[in-house]
Amino acid sequence: MRKLVALPVLSADALSSVAYGPEALLAVLVLAGTAGLAYSVPVSAAIVFLMLAVGLSYRQTIRAYPHGGGSYIVATDNLGRIPGLVAAAGLMTDYVLTVAVSVSSGMAAVTSAVPSLAGDVVVIGVLVIAVLLAGNLRGVRQAGALFAAPTYAFVVAIFALVGFGLYHAAGRGFEPVPHPPLHAVEGVGLLLVMRAFASGSTAMTGIEAISNAVPAFKTISWRNARTTLSWMIGLLIALFAGTVAMVHLEGVVPRPGETVLSQLAHRSFGSNGMYVFTQAATALILLLAANTAFNDFPRVLSLLARDNHAPRVFLRLGDRLAFSNGIILLSVAAALVYVAFDGNTASLIPLYAVGVFLAFTLSQSGMVVHWWRGRERHWRKSLCFNATGAVLSALVFITAGITKFTEGAWLAILAVGAFLLVTTRIHRHYARVAEALRLGPRHVEIPSRTIAPRPCADPAAGPAPDAEPEESPEEIRHLSVVPLDALHRASMRALAYAASLQQPVLALHVSPDDEDAERFRAAWQMWGDHLPLRIVVSPYRAIVTPLISYVESLHRQRPDLTITVIIPEIVVRHWWQRVLHSPLAGRLRRALRPLPKIVVTTVPFHIADGRSDRRAEKGNRREEGNRHTG
Amino acid sequence: MRKLVALPVLSADALSSVAYGPEALLAVLVLAGTAGLAYSVPVSAAIVFLMLAVGLSYRQTIRAYPHGGGSYIVATDNLGRIPGLVAAAGLMTDYVLTVAVSVSSGMAAVTSAVPSLAGDVVVIGVLVIAVLLAGNLRGVRQAGALFAAPTYAFVVAIFALVGFGLYHAAGRGFEPVPHPPLHAVEGVGLLLVMRAFASGSTAMTGIEAISNAVPAFKTISWRNARTTLSWMIGLLIALFAGTVAMVHLEGVVPRPGETVLSQLAHRSFGSNGMYVFTQAATALILLLAANTAFNDFPRVLSLLARDNHAPRVFLRLGDRLAFSNGIILLSVAAALVYVAFDGNTASLIPLYAVGVFLAFTLSQSGMVVHWWRGRERHWRKSLCFNATGAVLSALVFITAGITKFTEGAWLAILAVGAFLLVTTRIHRHYARVAEALRLGPRHVEIPSRTIAPRPCADPAAGPAPDAEPEESPEEIRHLSVVPLDALHRASMRALAYAASLQQPVLALHVSPDDEDAERFRAAWQMWGDHLPLRIVVSPYRAIVTPLISYVESLHRQRPDLTITVIIPEIVVRHWWQRVLHSPLAGRLRRALRPLPKIVVTTVPFHIADGRSDRRAEKGNRREEGNRHTG
Repeated sequence: MRKLVALPVLSADALSSVAYGPEALLAVLVLAGTAGLAYSVPVSAAIVFLMLAVGLSYRQTIRAYPHGGGSYIVATDNLGRIPGLVAAAGLMTDYVLTVAVSVSSGMAAVTSAVPSLAGDVVVIGVLVIAVLLAGNLRGVRQAGALFAAPTYAFVVAIFALVGFGLYHAAGRGFEPVPHPPLHAVEGVGLLLVMRAFASGSTAMTGIEAISNAVPAFKTISWRNARTTLSWMIGLLIALFAGTVAMVHLEGVVPRPGETVLSQLAHRSFGSNGMYVFTQAATALILLLAANTAFNDFPRVLSLLARDNHAPRVFLRLGDRLAFSNGIILLSVAAALVYVAFDGNTASLIPLYAVGVFLAFTLSQSGMVVHWWRGRERHWRKSLCFNATGAVLSALVFITAGITKFTEGAWLAILAVGAFLLVTTRIHRHYARVAEALRLGPRHVEIPSRTIAPRPCADPAAGPAPDAEPEESPEEIRHLSVVPLDALHRASMRALAYAASLQQPVLALHVSPDDEDAERFRAAWQMWGDHLPLRIVVSPYRAIVTPLISYVESLHRQRPDLTITVIIPEIVVRHWWQRVLHSPLAGRLRRALRPLPKIVVTTVPFHIADGRSDRRAEKGNRREEGNRHTG
Repeated sequence: MRKLVALPVLSADALSSVAYGPEALLAVLVLAGTAGLAYSVPVSAAIVFLMLAVGLSYRQTIRAYPHGGGSYIVATDNLGRIPGLVAAAGLMTDYVLTVAVSVSSGMAAVTSAVPSLAGDVVVIGVLVIAVLLAGNLRGVRQAGALFAAPTYAFVVAIFALVGFGLYHAAGRGFEPVPHPPLHAVEGVGLLLVMRAFASGSTAMTGIEAISNAVPAFKTISWRNARTTLSWMIGLLIALFAGTVAMVHLEGVVPRPGETVLSQLAHRSFGSNGMYVFTQAATALILLLAANTAFNDFPRVLSLLARDNHAPRVFLRLGDRLAFSNGIILLSVAAALVYVAFDGNTASLIPLYAVGVFLAFTLSQSGMVVHWWRGRERHWRKSLCFNATGAVLSALVFITAGITKFTEGAWLAILAVGAFLLVTTRIHRHYARVAEALRLGPRHVEIPSRTIAPRPCADPAAGPAPDAEPEESPEEIRHLSVVPLDALHRASMRALAYAASLQQPVLALHVSPDDEDAERFRAAWQMWGDHLPLRIVVSPYRAIVTPLISYVESLHRQRPDLTITVIIPEIVVRHWWQRVLHSPLAGRLRRALRPLPKIVVTTVPFHIADGRSDRRAEKGNRREEGNRHTG
């Protein structure tokens, strides 16, 4: 990817954060009234410093991981499995909230311009998520001018906004416009300032995107990626600082119904086309930011699956199913969060900061360990940058986790915990299965005497835990059991199949009463009584349970036998016909599955569908006709 | 059942109709203003005549069908299969609408007394349907004083209402109170009067309940049932006529937000406890009426299933599953209709009349044919009564179908059509399956040579259409195909099973590329190369499709072979573990099902769950310890 294409595509997530970050910062400070707002400039300066530090930190990551250094990879590589999983948990909540926050903030940009839509924010937002899902299921790719345009438009709009604003301000000698009177509900304190800092830090979410995508750059890719990162950090700081400066100069305060950015645009441009352009560009870059999560989420799931931490179905990114399942999961989670928080950006911010900065912290800490272990050229400088990034990220994470715990951060922390629990259980399960399936020395010569024995051994296989010792083919003793509901062609076919295996066969019928049992036995006699028959009388019309009990008792009496249950199954052509037939074969198969030494065989009997049947009937009639005439 | 218990339980549906019937009648007449209202008394008189005629008509049905004569049975017996199905369609829509109308009318009784609930009618109504469903799933039975109380309470309340009303009216010399000024939107005409008649006729819905339930009465059951029916008709006419008379005397007109019955109760009792009692009794009898549909709907479904017109799963009424599926179907349909019509009784009435009077018409017509054919004692009188009932019911059905077509009757007619289509297709399908499964003379001696041949013949079986000729056991030639994803203990067990059948075996592996193919072949060689192996290279990572194609081509090359596909299946203990494993076995089974001469066998390999595994591990470790010490 060329840098001028990579920049807008990869920085949409980060730059779009300017649409909600400054507002989130002000929303906290305004609680302390005028005295609180006075802190907006120093807190913003701290955030700019954080942006610089984290940006420099990611420059180091790009150099060290030229094949892409996501938080999960870096943390796993350097800190171990569990920290890696915690980072992944942070990332996953991050992606879900990127979608939710970007959509809610985009909706706020739209409703600022068109207030009449404000009542339908939740419904429209869910529809937007559905459209993103549909587009990605169809396979929209992030490429081309279409995806670059919103980012450049947004940058142009904000620069114009700041430029016009400064021009106006110059006219009045840079005297700040007094903000509307405020009602302070709490005093200024360290806690308030920390909360504002944590909220405002969401302005840098998405900053890690370039370090994930290094291989996508033209060679020398890591160099180009670093340059692009530097440009992006520069733009991000310019947009953020510009926005905060304008807020200060114009005396704008957050208010319901209109975003801070919309208020600023109104001040700079009035209500003309440029205002509409700004709002449209904001909404579009946020949509693009939400869309990036649809590429990143399945990628992380695939990495997790590779390490046996997620279901294997997510493993192959190229596989349609893996990608689709991933983005459906993302969409459902994002839509749930979005609806649960009424599509309100301010309520979502506390959740967002926790996940993002948890991943940042672990990723940067991993880099510290990386430099310490490797001691390559410039390792001291790089370690320094990463350590600063790690400490500052940790500060934001802890601040957000503690000061916003009751406002929603608890949910993010709970999600991380649940994620850890699930992934480690999945890992343990896969390990157990691999152990159970591993071939021992005994298994490498199973069909030894029956078919061409040959000396061999699998050197890779260690001894397996012989919970269920395997039998060799000549040790297997067979008994076939054929459950029958009635005597018809499907039953006959199953019986013929069973008899053809040249092994003992037992037919089994369940009757609701003795009368039915007698009737069935009579039919059996009439048919010829070729095979042994057992009839089980089950007065409560249950069929599956008595069959299973009978097979289980057979197994208990003769544990040496491998019992093959041969089920006649009527197969129809259409799904609607399936509901017309007893689901007995499927139920029986499911009930037999957990039993030891039971093999289940289904012998299908196909019912022709209407058309072919009618054709056959016609054929029969024609034949009859011929016979009559002949 | 004793008559005094049977009366309230079986007549709840009919008597509760007085809660909405008169109002539905007035709602049409009021469109023509004062001139229209003048017709309320003659139209009501016509409805009373209809009640008498239909009541007398059902007295004949009870005598002729002492084992219960529902519309479906009577119409099928006397008119044939299709008229029977039409009657059943009418009944099914009737039951769905009984639930919807009773709940909406009950909600109207509640909101008349508590107007603040009016905004939540739809939500509360759906909850009420859900509660009815839950209660019936748990198994509430219509019995005892609990179910008799609401009916008696309602009768007492309406009689008191009429009594007090007449007392007040007597005080002013039976001079009608002038009704509020009305704005006529259409003129009085035959069409208007007909529409009012059709709407008002809903006051007699549920009148057929006793004729369905004749066997539930004490002996001589048909005599007791007839007596109870006469009492019910008497009560119904008294309540209906009383209500209409009060409407006339008090000058009450339908208005939104308060039912006519509630207005009358206010006039008679004021707003005291007696008013609340009336409203509560109305709501409860309507709830009871809705509940009766939960017993009738599965009963009709069961009759339809008996005649192969509905899925067999509905056949056995005693079966928990049949009953549950039936009432879930009813609840979902009723809830959908209820929500679609905003829980508004007036909008539901046009749909209701169509289904009810369609069933009435066919049932009474069936009785006419019954008397004409049988010519038993008094057949002329009975035929006369039933013919009158049939003609009047048909009149209401046609009036409702035509005059209310655009108001919703089209939906009921569409439902009847769809029902006919579905039931006849189901019938045709079952007939085709029975034909395909029928044993021909060839089948009665299938395993002739292998196991004890014996001369025999099934006299009941006719010649079956030999679309797929059956093979006898010794004619069956086997080939086992074992698809393998990797060489592990589960694969080995399937291979050992296949080898033990003493028939040719072919192992089959799908590789994404040649490299993987080589690796697999090397592992196979190392294992001993005991069995023939085919490797299919499928570059797009598809697995099921190439496997199926390979098996299909095997079948085309050797159509004489019965191919048994032996699938190794990893079986885990918990549902959540299942999502962690490839659904390949199931997908393969489903894909193979439609192919001819393919038998599918699954050989399970069980993975122990965590706890038992850890116990086993401990055991292993202990053994090892012993070995070391020993």
